[in-house]
Amino acid sequence: PEGLSLWKSKSTFTSFHVFFLQMGWGDLGAFGEPSKETPNLDQMASEGMLFLDFYTANPLCSPSRAALLTGRLPVRNGFYTTNAHARNAYTPQDIVGGIPDSELLLPELLKKAGYINKIIGKWHLGHRPQFHPLKHGFDEWFGSPNCHFGPFDNRALPNIPVYRDWEMIGRYYEDFKIDLKTGEANLTQIYLQEALDFISKQQASQQPFFLYWAIDATHAPVYASKQFLGTSHRGLYGDAVREIDDSIGKILKHLQKLGIGENTFVFFTSDNGAALISAPKQGGSNGRFLCGKQTTFEGGMREPAIAWWPGHIPAGGVSHQLGNVMDLFTTSLSLAGLQPPGDRQIDGIDLLPAILQGKLIDRPIFYYRGNEMMAVRVGLYKAHYWTWSNSWEEYSKGIDFCPGQNVSGVTTHTQEEHTTLPLLFHLGRDPGENFAGGEYQRAMERISVVVQQHKATMVPGEPQLNVCDKAVMNWSPPGCEKLGKCLKPPKSDPKKCFWPH
Amino acid sequence: PEGLSLWKSKSTFTSFHVFFLQMGWGDLGAFGEPSKETPNLDQMASEGMLFLDFYTANPLCSPSRAALLTGRLPVRNGFYTTNAHARNAYTPQDIVGGIPDSELLLPELLKKAGYINKIIGKWHLGHRPQFHPLKHGFDEWFGSPNCHFGPFDNRALPNIPVYRDWEMIGRYYEDFKIDLKTGEANLTQIYLQEALDFISKQQASQQPFFLYWAIDATHAPVYASKQFLGTSHRGLYGDAVREIDDSIGKILKHLQKLGIGENTFVFFTSDNGAALISAPKQGGSNGRFLCGKQTTFEGGMREPAIAWWPGHIPAGGVSHQLGNVMDLFTTSLSLAGLQPPGDRQIDGIDLLPAILQGKLIDRPIFYYRGNEMMAVRVGLYKAHYWTWSNSWEEYSKGIDFCPGQNVSGVTTHTQEEHTTLPLLFHLGRDPGENFAGGEYQRAMERISVVVQQHKATMVPGEPQLNVCDKAVMNWSPPGCEKLGKCLKPPKSDPKKCFWPH
Repeated sequence: PEGLSLWKSKSTFTSFHVFFLQMGWGDLGAFGEPSKETPNLDQMASEGMLFLDFYTANPLCSPSRAALLTGRLPVRNGFYTTNAHARNAYTPQDIVGGIPDSELLLPELLKKAGYINKIIGKWHLGHRPQFHPLKHGFDEWFGSPNCHFGPFDNRALPNIPVYRDWEMIGRYYEDFKIDLKTGEANLTQIYLQEALDFISKQQASQQPFFLYWAIDATHAPVYASKQFLGTSHRGLYGDAVREIDDSIGKILKHLQKLGIGENTFVFFTSDNGAALISAPKQGGSNGRFLCGKQTTFEGGMREPAIAWWPGHIPAGGVSHQLGNVMDLFTTSLSLAGLQPPGDRQIDGIDLLPAILQGKLIDRPIFYYRGNEMMAVRVGLYKAHYWTWSNSWEEYSKGIDFCPGQNVSGVTTHTQEEHTTLPLLFHLGRDPGENFAGGEYQRAMERISVVVQQHKATMVPGEPQLNVCDKAVMNWSPPGCEKLGKCLKPPKSDPKKCFWPH
Repeated sequence: PEGLSLWKSKSTFTSFHVFFLQMGWGDLGAFGEPSKETPNLDQMASEGMLFLDFYTANPLCSPSRAALLTGRLPVRNGFYTTNAHARNAYTPQDIVGGIPDSELLLPELLKKAGYINKIIGKWHLGHRPQFHPLKHGFDEWFGSPNCHFGPFDNRALPNIPVYRDWEMIGRYYEDFKIDLKTGEANLTQIYLQEALDFISKQQASQQPFFLYWAIDATHAPVYASKQFLGTSHRGLYGDAVREIDDSIGKILKHLQKLGIGENTFVFFTSDNGAALISAPKQGGSNGRFLCGKQTTFEGGMREPAIAWWPGHIPAGGVSHQLGNVMDLFTTSLSLAGLQPPGDRQIDGIDLLPAILQGKLIDRPIFYYRGNEMMAVRVGLYKAHYWTWSNSWEEYSKGIDFCPGQNVSGVTTHTQEEHTTLPLLFHLGRDPGENFAGGEYQRAMERISVVVQQHKATMVPGEPQLNVCDKAVMNWSPPGCEKLGKCLKPPKSDPKKCFWPH
């Protein structure tokens, strides 16, 4: 999860945003998970507003995070690849690129309004020095630059570092243990404590703040603390969800205890759909939606979402506003009394009219996979211009992004172009994208206008995720000298990254 | 839906049970339906208790209703067929059988404690004179004996009659219109008014009552009143759900307005999973569960369930008690201070300890299809002894009980026997029955004992659903003379019924 937390002492608000990685639409009790093991998130929903039609900007982690912090589609902010058509790309350790300096991130803008900004958890917008979060508007960081895969041997691959602010303070598996056999790790507790301490400090100093809580316990390899292991009906994944749920409950209670609950805008959501490829042991659920992470079906991009701001957001509200993680950029600026930058296209909209006045803003949702607009949603209609789950080659190796789900002609294993006759679904009658067809002509007339407009004004950014190089891995992050943890990188050998999906 | 409503003037309760036909686990907002259009049922859940692991006794309507009212599995009470192995059977108009006189129905027993019993809606336990609900314990009836298919021409097939108590007062399509083009029909409003009137009358006369509200708007052909048409994101099916949701809200408010809310035990559930074969236009959703009506996968038999009894049931409760519609028989008797009959096997258990004290009672769930125990659930484990969706022959005609879902080796199109090595699923980690396997030996040891016990003591009832005869259809129901609506039956020609699924 990642979190926004804005707070202004004498003003009406704060914003604190929790952005849950790898958690699917169907993982919360409030969204119908059959074990109903998220009492704190469910209570957050009953005190706040549930968004049922909320999306991420990409079916993969890094691009979604870049979109959240820039308010722009990955194809604009550079978090995509042109190495092959319609490929998901992210920021593994050997990626050369990262967030361009030309992009304006939410914390950079909030700084101008006096906010202190902290990221706790996974950054994922590039791990090389120029991409460091403290160079892009954050004041504090506790967490890692990449996914916590491992353990690595530090010869072929270095273990992922954990940073405190500018410097590393250790590495995953070495200094921050994860027992891959039992799934035990106390990292969520550490990330929780970091959040509570930061909030206390900001409250004491009466400084407005933005906290982006982007923890990684529900991303493979999944982990939970000892006290949560074995407590879920859902196995280890559920244990991790329970611990995160518990942590969010504690953070909300902490805000209220400090008397700043009514000044704090909190948003919970996720960066991509559940990774069904890892489910059920290392991945979650997308409820009744089709497929999961990596795909532009609803399971890949529709996300659980809850807005909480006691005293402002009507309790128990339910919104069908089409929302997107990019809206958190614009909405947060709006809360801070700031305007989004006027020199570039911003895709996020201000959700406050939807949240506070129950308005429904007509706006489309674009589903991209890499450099291709695969689908678009307008109202209750979704038109697929391209369909693809993954290649036959990958599928034949057992990689299945839609396990137990196969919709003929829809979950295709070749990239199928439908640009002249898009596949149309009505997501109200058919949220599972099972039955193409419907009131075709009327719907497509409306959608075509939206798509033409979008394509006509699209200026893609310089792709950041094309080049990989083992030499740029986390061999010697800043601070490694003090710890005696510097590793010797191999010779530079930049190559086109291989993106199979 | 069907409803139980028990009420005792000076005692602690009443029971009113709503039993929703054709509504799936995933059709309610509280269970994660993505349009969240059931505010009244969701509120009922937040004031009462949600059952997340609640089952019907059969993946088809008639047998489930027979099970609800007798507290016994259909294979015991006769609501099954032996015409072929593991076939679903129900009570179409040409069925010869019905509820045997030897079965003791809930209203017959409640009568002894002074209850006045009413059924509103579909009876479905046989339409021939000896099976009339008023011969089996009900004092009043407003509704139909069969599914409201039609319109029929009254020459080849008679339209289904609508009864008031002993006599028909008209027929579907003739006197009770359903516009199949628009889906408009005002029948739910009529059934609602019947319920409100009955409750008012019982309250006025201070007589305890049992109301079984078994309406049929969500069963194909789906219908809704004009004021609800077009109001749902989900199309006509959603319109019907909205109207039913609205009606239930009105019934609950009526109970409270009359001051008997705290004396009324209300239960909402369904007789089978959503009919995915009819979805999305004429059928609902089973959330993330596998397949639908007609199958013994979770989508066929796990049901939405809510218990409501203000002042007694803790508000906002969530129960993982394994429950079954047959439990409503035993639970209702318990509420009325009665014992279940001791001369026969009763499968339903008393849920009150689970509802009032949060206890978890260890009990298995058996999944039957006709004369075969297909699967069993013990704790979080479910073992399939037989798997079958439907035959290749039916499937090749486009009849698909698992649209968009295909789990290799699980949703089989031949009847696959696994009795020596049952397919095992962990429903906590894998509610969608996608990943067979797991802690096999330990789980199967526990399950085998339960199954052996069950089989050793099983005494099947005389099958009631083997013989069909066009002569027994609703040609001349009692009361037809007064209306001039008697039709001439064809010559008797009894045959083995054909049950393809």
